[in-house]
Amino acid sequence: MKKFVYYAPTEIVFGCGCISEVAEIAKRYGTKALLVTGNMGSSQAPTFQKVKKLLNDSGINVAHFDGVIPNPTTDVVTAGADMAKEFKAEIVIGVGGGSAMDTAKAIAVEATHPGSAWDYNCHTDGPTEATLPIIEISTTAGTGSQLTQCAVITKTSDKDKSAIWHKNIFPKVAIVDPEVTASMPKTVTAHTGFDAFCHNFEAYLSVNTSPIVETLALDAIRTIAEYLPKALEDGGDMEARSKMAYADSLGGYTNSNAGVTLPHGLGMQVGGHCPHVTHGQALAAIYPEFTRFTWKSTVEKFAAVGRIFNQDLEKETDEIAAEKCCEEIDHFLKKIDMWIGFKDLNVTMEDIREIADCGQVLGDYLNNPRVATIDEMYELLTACYERK
Amino acid sequence: MKKFVYYAPTEIVFGCGCISEVAEIAKRYGTKALLVTGNMGSSQAPTFQKVKKLLNDSGINVAHFDGVIPNPTTDVVTAGADMAKEFKAEIVIGVGGGSAMDTAKAIAVEATHPGSAWDYNCHTDGPTEATLPIIEISTTAGTGSQLTQCAVITKTSDKDKSAIWHKNIFPKVAIVDPEVTASMPKTVTAHTGFDAFCHNFEAYLSVNTSPIVETLALDAIRTIAEYLPKALEDGGDMEARSKMAYADSLGGYTNSNAGVTLPHGLGMQVGGHCPHVTHGQALAAIYPEFTRFTWKSTVEKFAAVGRIFNQDLEKETDEIAAEKCCEEIDHFLKKIDMWIGFKDLNVTMEDIREIADCGQVLGDYLNNPRVATIDEMYELLTACYERK
Repeated sequence: MKKFVYYAPTEIVFGCGCISEVAEIAKRYGTKALLVTGNMGSSQAPTFQKVKKLLNDSGINVAHFDGVIPNPTTDVVTAGADMAKEFKAEIVIGVGGGSAMDTAKAIAVEATHPGSAWDYNCHTDGPTEATLPIIEISTTAGTGSQLTQCAVITKTSDKDKSAIWHKNIFPKVAIVDPEVTASMPKTVTAHTGFDAFCHNFEAYLSVNTSPIVETLALDAIRTIAEYLPKALEDGGDMEARSKMAYADSLGGYTNSNAGVTLPHGLGMQVGGHCPHVTHGQALAAIYPEFTRFTWKSTVEKFAAVGRIFNQDLEKETDEIAAEKCCEEIDHFLKKIDMWIGFKDLNVTMEDIREIADCGQVLGDYLNNPRVATIDEMYELLTACYERK
Repeated sequence: MKKFVYYAPTEIVFGCGCISEVAEIAKRYGTKALLVTGNMGSSQAPTFQKVKKLLNDSGINVAHFDGVIPNPTTDVVTAGADMAKEFKAEIVIGVGGGSAMDTAKAIAVEATHPGSAWDYNCHTDGPTEATLPIIEISTTAGTGSQLTQCAVITKTSDKDKSAIWHKNIFPKVAIVDPEVTASMPKTVTAHTGFDAFCHNFEAYLSVNTSPIVETLALDAIRTIAEYLPKALEDGGDMEARSKMAYADSLGGYTNSNAGVTLPHGLGMQVGGHCPHVTHGQALAAIYPEFTRFTWKSTVEKFAAVGRIFNQDLEKETDEIAAEKCCEEIDHFLKKIDMWIGFKDLNVTMEDIREIADCGQVLGDYLNNPRVATIDEMYELLTACYERK
C-alpha cells in the first residue's frame, strides 16, 4: 500500500433539527460569538435569525456581521475582523454557503494576527493556533467548506484570488442540518450538488488519494448519483436533502485530504475571469471534456464510477466501463439540467484563452492522473464551448 | 437519516517505513519525550530501540519507561507518570500493542492532573486539556488504540477494570508502519486481527452507528476477510500486513465513534476473571453464539457481511444471507485457527456464571441490536463452552 496521511479533525454534528444544538456547542469555546452571514435580504435570513436567537436565548453575546458577498474579498474580511476585534469575539460562527463559511474562517485569522488574512494564504506559513475557534453551519450542500482547512478569498485591490489552506482553520465543529438546506432553489441545489460530486470524484482520482478517501468518496458518489436528481425533483424530500448534505460533508473530508484536480483548477480560473459564472456551472461545462481527457490514465477508477451510474457495466471489461463512464456523467449532467457549454454561460473565446493561460497558477492540475500542458488546457476548454 | 456525531481528530501517518518520521512529528509538540513501552526483553525491543535512536538523533530528549505489562495497572501508570513529572516530559510516545498505547494515554493524564489516572475514568468528567500530547506507534494490528479516546486500566488494589474514555486522550498522531507489525507471531496476528474484525463488525451493528462508520467498517471487514488469512499464511507478506494495519486503523475510527456491542462487553469480563485468556480468544469463543443471538434483529447488515464472505449469497434473500453469515463467520474462525470454546481456554462453568453476572457492568451490551438479559448472557456463554 502507498503511504498516506489522513487528518480530519472537525467534529460533524449531523441531522434534521441539529441546528438547535448551536448554543450548547458554542459554549464549549466561549460566550462572545461573531455571527458571520450574508445580508438579511437573502432567502437564508430566517436561518440567520434563528441561530442568533438560539445563541442569545442561551446567554451567548452575539455580534452579527452580515456583510458576506459571493467571492468574498479582503475588504469584507477586514470589516468582519474589525468587528470581531472590537467585540472581543471568542468564537466565530459562519452560517451560509461556501462564501459565508470561508469568510468566517478568514475573519478568525485576521482578528488574531497582524496584517490581513491575505498575509496567511497558501503561499505563506499560514495562520497560528491563535486563530479563533470556528463553527460552521452549512445552508447549501456542495462546498464541503464546513469540514475543510480552506478559505478562498479575493484581494480587493487587484482581484487576485487565492486561498488560506492550513490546519489551523479547520472548523472545530460543523453543524449540518439538512432541514436548513431545504430552502435552496432548484438551480442552487443543482450547482452545489454537482460541486459536491466533483469534490468526491476528483479526490477519488487524485494522485494524492488514500484508501480512506477512496472509500468515503465512492460512498458519496453513489449517494449523489441517486439522490441529487431526487432533491431536484422535490426540494422538500428530506431524505434526499439529508443524503445530499451527507455526501457534501464527505466531500469536505475527501477534498481536504486528497485535494481536487484539473476541473477545479480550471474552474477557479473561470470564476476569476467570469464572476457571473457559478462554480458549479464552470465545472459542468468542463466535465465532458475532462473525463475524456483523463479516463485512459485511470481506467479502474473510471470503471468503478461508471458501474455506480450504470450497473449493466458490471458485465463489461474495465476498459469499456471506464470509457462509458464519460457518457454516464454526460447523462447525469443532462438529468440535473446542467448540460451546458461556455457559450451558454457567455464565456468568450478570448476568456477561454486567458483561462487556459492561467491554468497552471494553482497546483490542482498536478493532482490529475493525466497532467495537462497549457496547450492541452486550451484545447480542452475550447472543446467545451458549445454543447449539442 | 438518523442524527449522528462523528469525531476522529487523530492524524494518521500510514505506510511502510513511516516510523522514521517520528522525530519530525514529535517536534511539533516538544523536545522532551517520555517513551512508553513493554520491557526490553520483548520481541518488539528492536522497534523500541529504533524509535529511541531516531528521537535522540534529532535532538529530542528521551526518558524511557519500559514498565508496561499486559492489562496495565494503576501502579504501572503511576510509575510512568512519576517518571514523566520528574523528567518534565512535554509529550508521551507509546510504542506497542494496546497495553503500551493505553498506558501512554493514562500516563499523559496522571502526569498533568491531581490524583491518579483512575480518578478520570469513564464514570467521571474525565481529564482536561492539560493532558500531555500523545503520539502512538502501533506494533500490532488489532486494538485500534492508536486512534481512540480509550485507555483500559486495572486498579491494582481491587483488580477493578475500567477505562478512561474521553476526547482529551485522543492521540495527536498515530504512526502506523506495517513493517513494524511484521514481527508479530502467528497467534498474536490471529488474536489481534480477529479483534480488529470485531471492532468493525460491532461498530457496524451498533445502535449508535452512523453512515460514516458503516462505510469505513464495511471496507475494513472486506479487507480483513481477504487479508488476515494471507498475513497468517506468510507473516512477511507486506501487502497483507499493510491491509491489516489499515483495517485495524479503521477499527479505531469506527469503535471510537459507534462503540462496540455485546461480545466486547462480555469479552472484557472474561479478561477480568480469566486473565490468561487473550482478548481475541475471548471474542472468538463468544462469536458463534453471539451471531446466532443477534442476526434476526439486524437482517440487512448480517446479509451484507455474509455476502462479503461469500459472494454466492448475492443470489439469496437477505433473510437467508443473514442466517448464513453466522456460518461464514464460523468458517472464518476455523480458517484463522480460532475455532475455540471456553473449555479449550480453561474457563470453568463457575467462571462463566461470574462473567454473566457482570455482563451488564459495562454499557456495551446496550449497543447491540438485541439487548441481552443476564439470563440470556449466561445461556449464551454456556453454549460457548465446547466447540466441535
